[in-house]
Formats: sequence, C-alpha cells, structure tokens
Amino acid sequence: MQVLALAGGVGGAKLAAGLANLLGERLTVVVNTADDFEHLGFHISPDLDTVTYTLAGIANPATGWGLADESWQFMSQIERLGGPTWFSLGDRDVALHAMRTNKLRNKETLSSITSTISRSLGIQATILPMTDDCVQTFVRCDGQLLAFQEYFVRKKCEPIVSEIIFKGIETAQPNSELTTQLDLNRPITTIICPSNPYLSIDPILAVPGMRDWLIEVSDVIVAVSPIVAGSAIKGPAAKIMSEIGLEPSAATVCKHYEGLIDGFVVDSLDESITTSVGAPGPAIVALQTIMRSEADRTELAKECLAFAERLLVKVQQ
Amino acid sequence: MQVLALAGGVGGAKLAAGLANLLGERLTVVVNTADDFEHLGFHISPDLDTVTYTLAGIANPATGWGLADESWQFMSQIERLGGPTWFSLGDRDVALHAMRTNKLRNKETLSSITSTISRSLGIQATILPMTDDCVQTFVRCDGQLLAFQEYFVRKKCEPIVSEIIFKGIETAQPNSELTTQLDLNRPITTIICPSNPYLSIDPILAVPGMRDWLIEVSDVIVAVSPIVAGSAIKGPAAKIMSEIGLEPSAATVCKHYEGLIDGFVVDSLDESITTSVGAPGPAIVALQTIMRSEADRTELAKECLAFAERLLVKVQQ
Repeated sequence: MQVLALAGGVGGAKLAAGLANLLGERLTVVVNTADDFEHLGFHISPDLDTVTYTLAGIANPATGWGLADESWQFMSQIERLGGPTWFSLGDRDVALHAMRTNKLRNKETLSSITSTISRSLGIQATILPMTDDCVQTFVRCDGQLLAFQEYFVRKKCEPIVSEIIFKGIETAQPNSELTTQLDLNRPITTIICPSNPYLSIDPILAVPGMRDWLIEVSDVIVAVSPIVAGSAIKGPAAKIMSEIGLEPSAATVCKHYEGLIDGFVVDSLDESITTSVGAPGPAIVALQTIMRSEADRTELAKECLAFAERLLVKVQQ
Repeated sequence: MQVLALAGGVGGAKLAAGLANLLGERLTVVVNTADDFEHLGFHISPDLDTVTYTLAGIANPATGWGLADESWQFMSQIERLGGPTWFSLGDRDVALHAMRTNKLRNKETLSSITSTISRSLGIQATILPMTDDCVQTFVRCDGQLLAFQEYFVRKKCEPIVSEIIFKGIETAQPNSELTTQLDLNRPITTIICPSNPYLSIDPILAVPGMRDWLIEVSDVIVAVSPIVAGSAIKGPAAKIMSEIGLEPSAATVCKHYEGLIDGFVVDSLDESITTSVGAPGPAIVALQTIMRSEADRTELAKECLAFAERLLVKVQQ
C-alpha cells in the first residue's frame, strides 16, 4: 500500500510517525510550509521540522516543537547580545536552520534539503514540502495583518482572527517530486492527518492544482479530525473556528473537507456523529484519536489504514 | 592619553586587553578583517571576535579563539546532518555569528554591528574593523591560491606559502569612524600589537590611505614584536617568514615596520638587538612580552605606554 499523508505540526506529525512505523518508505508526507518564516536570518520551517524530528524519534514531546534534551546556550548568548528572544531556538535545532538556510542561499531547493536532512536522521519515509515556492500565512486581527509566527508564538494566539490569508499561494507550484515520488499505477491512499484544517491543511490544498490532483490520484481519501468533543488537542483550531463564525466540532471539520474525502475519523468521544454504511456524504467512524504514546500513534495509523482499506473495497465494488 | 592599537588575533588581542585595562574608553583598537570569511552561511570575523571576546574577558585562553566554557551541541548536530566540521563553532559563539550575519544582510555596517556587540558585552574601548569593505586574504601555496581559513584552520598552516594576497584591498576604504572616534587635537599614541606582521598588521596598513594617515595623526608609533628568539608565540608567523625568504627574527619585523614606527619592543630574550638612545632607526627596548596571565598583559601595556611616553618627550624636544 502506498500512502500519502498531509500534515502540519504536532498532531499531524504524530499520526505521520504512526504511519511511518507501519509503512517505512511506502509513506510520503506532504507538509505545510506556509508557516515558514525568517528569524535571525534563518529560514525556519516549523511544520517541516516538527514532522522531521517526530519521524526521526528525536522531537521534544513536551513542547510540540524542537528537539528532546535540547540545550539553550545559543539562546542565552542571543539574549546577552541584545537579540530577539521571543522565538526559542535550541542549540542543536539551530544547526538544522543554519544548514537549510545556507543551502537555500546556494540555490538548493527546500525539497532537496529536506530530503538530505531526512536521510541523515535515518528517516525512511519521504517528507515533501507542499511547494518549493514561498507561501506565507497571515491572519487578520482587528483589521491588521499579522505574520503567522507573530500571531502564533509572539502573541500566543491571543488576538481574535477574522481572516486567514496565504500570501503567494496563487503562483506557488505543487512540489514536483509528488509525481515522481508516487507510483501512479498503484493504489494511493491519502490520509489527511489531524492538523489544523484552516492553518495547516488548507494551505496544502490551496496550492494551485493540488486539490484536484489529490482527488485524481487518490483511490481513497480519509481525514482525521483534530477537533475532539469541541476542542483542539493542541493549538488554536477551535478558538479560530469560533472567531470566524464556525461551530468548533468534528462535524464542522468533516463538512469543511466535503467533496474531497471518502472517509472521516472522529474520536470516540464524538461517536454520535458516526454514519452507517450507505448514508450520504463521507463514511464517519469513531476511533481512539488522542495519541499519548508511541503505541497510540501506530494503533491509530493501523485503524485509519484499515478504514481506508474498507472504503477502497467499497469503491471498487 | 589617547591610544590607537592595531591588532589581529590572539597576541594582539592580549596586549589590547592590557591596554583596555589601563585606558578604558580612551582606547581604540583597529582590527584586521582580511581573515573574515563565510562559513555555513555565517559571516565570521575571527580577529574581531578574538579581540572582542578577549576584551570582554570571556575568551577561551586555551584555544586562542572562541569562548571559555563553550558547549558543542550545535557542532555535533551539524556533524549528524552531514555538514562541514573542519571549522568549530561553539553554541554561544554561533549566536554572535548569527546576529552579525543577519544585521549585515539587513545592510548594517560591520562597524556598527561590532559596536553594538562590544557594548552588550560591557567593553569600554572602541573596537573598529579596519574597513567595512570586503578584503580577503589568500595565500599562494604550490602555485595554488588558498583562502586564508582553508590554509589556517583546514590545512593547519601546513602548505608552504610563497605569496600573501589581500583581495579587494585596492578599493577598500579605511573605517570612517577612525576620524570621528579620535580627537585629532590631542596626542595620539599608536601601538602595533604583537600580531602577525604579514597576515594581520599588513592588511590594516595596506588599506589605501591608512598607513599615511597613521603616520600623520600619530604623535608616536610603537610596535611590539610577535617574534621572540626566532619563534612565534602562536601561529605561523615564523614559518611563513622562512618560506618567503626572511629570517624569522625580531630584527626582521623591526625592519618590516621601518619608516612607520618610532619605537620597537622586543622580548627580553632578544635583548641583544636593543639600541641606545641616539642610534639611527627606531628606538628598540626589551621587555617581558610573553603574556601568560592577565597581570602580564596589563604590565606589558603599561611598559609600552611608558616607552611611548619617553619617545614622545624626545620627539617634542
């Protein structure tokens, strides 16, 4: 089985890691890069790094970003030198940012750099940035446009969001390795991981041509809800949904993916919205989606693939 | 007393620190930047950093570069990611390189950045790069041009040098803050610190206009020999002197500075070449020039200033 996973940060990375445990090199993860930004001269790709570190088994489980057992000498010297301290960069994390930034300046593509880094960290799955072009998320708050990391890290998601904008998306090209990486003659299962639908998955789907291409090449598409019993496990998804006038619920997320997905996975706490076979719209199943342990990730990945398999059989009938 | 010191790396930085202990903000140190290079995308200024760290009292006394009590997590991750490891960058050291590189890309001058960093580290003396323009030292070895750090760090000064070239020197402008920093109406004593005359001091003197300007504004110029009893205390000075056909001795260095200096300080081990008052050429005195402790630095600085004072009185007679 060939699997394509779409992922943003923490939640998405966890399910991607579960899938990677089962599939190894048969997994391709397409990652949101609209959160990328420049800080202290470094090109930083928060979602790519979270996915990379998580798949390499070296992510910091407490923070959801950065590396486990990190040290902070770089940061303490930045502070001493009067530099900006609102965005924390661990000593080993900086190595990745320095390598990537240097290679980008030498005209290497983000895809190629991501691939080199993945391999050096022993990752078997393929991690692909959604595009090699520059796309930048801005959120409109009180009529003002805030760059995403300003909103997310510096202002701790406190401002009220009225609009989300992906600057540069109109001219971005989907990652060209998507077509070379996948064997289009064999079945492709696409899993939309439990990442923020509006901030992490939408930018991927909004890359021109990406959504239609996914529908075309995927034999089955399954999404996993990041909203459980009306709340987000991590991050501002539920808060933003309320702010832009949506009810923060798994059902709203399911509706958001309408026309794209064949199946939808909700948490067992949202079992009430599951559907029976033959009902209109995507099939909805309830699973244990909260991943507390490494075993939880693999278990959820296994169940998602089994669900996709059942849907595939149905589609092929 | 206003003092202008010319310095390169370790030896020069030590005497500059001794002078700073005595003079505080009445000291201006002009530093060689021809060793500057780009590594991992960082703009690295080895001599500026050695002088800065030494004057801030945080230099690593064992290595002659970098910070004391440094940690190496950045470097170990660079290695894991397959990056270059021949040039060591400590975790806190990287903070300075990142800050500087980012500010340079944002069009701040090296002088302005150096000044900000100095102040944040509590340095009272003024540290000025010799120029804000790009000058790069290359050494010709076996007919091949090697960038200085390639020769110095990567190849550990092993190749035989036939020529030293300062690329870009013809169009470099002397640091414009030199004229604003010094009070040209008050006496100026210039001390050429015991740095490599050919690799560290020559680039400073070769900046167009610098040598003549120094002669013009200095009431007295004193140089301290980096060669003691035919050997360099640190670095390849003596080796290179032999390779380019010069006898590695304090006398050769004194001759090299002919026409520029009024006084020359040799180590007590070279007492035989001292001159008595009234002899032709620069006055030569012997002092304890090997600086093993913080007290040695201040003592040598004090003796050099006293020597300059005696020469000044003689000049004014």
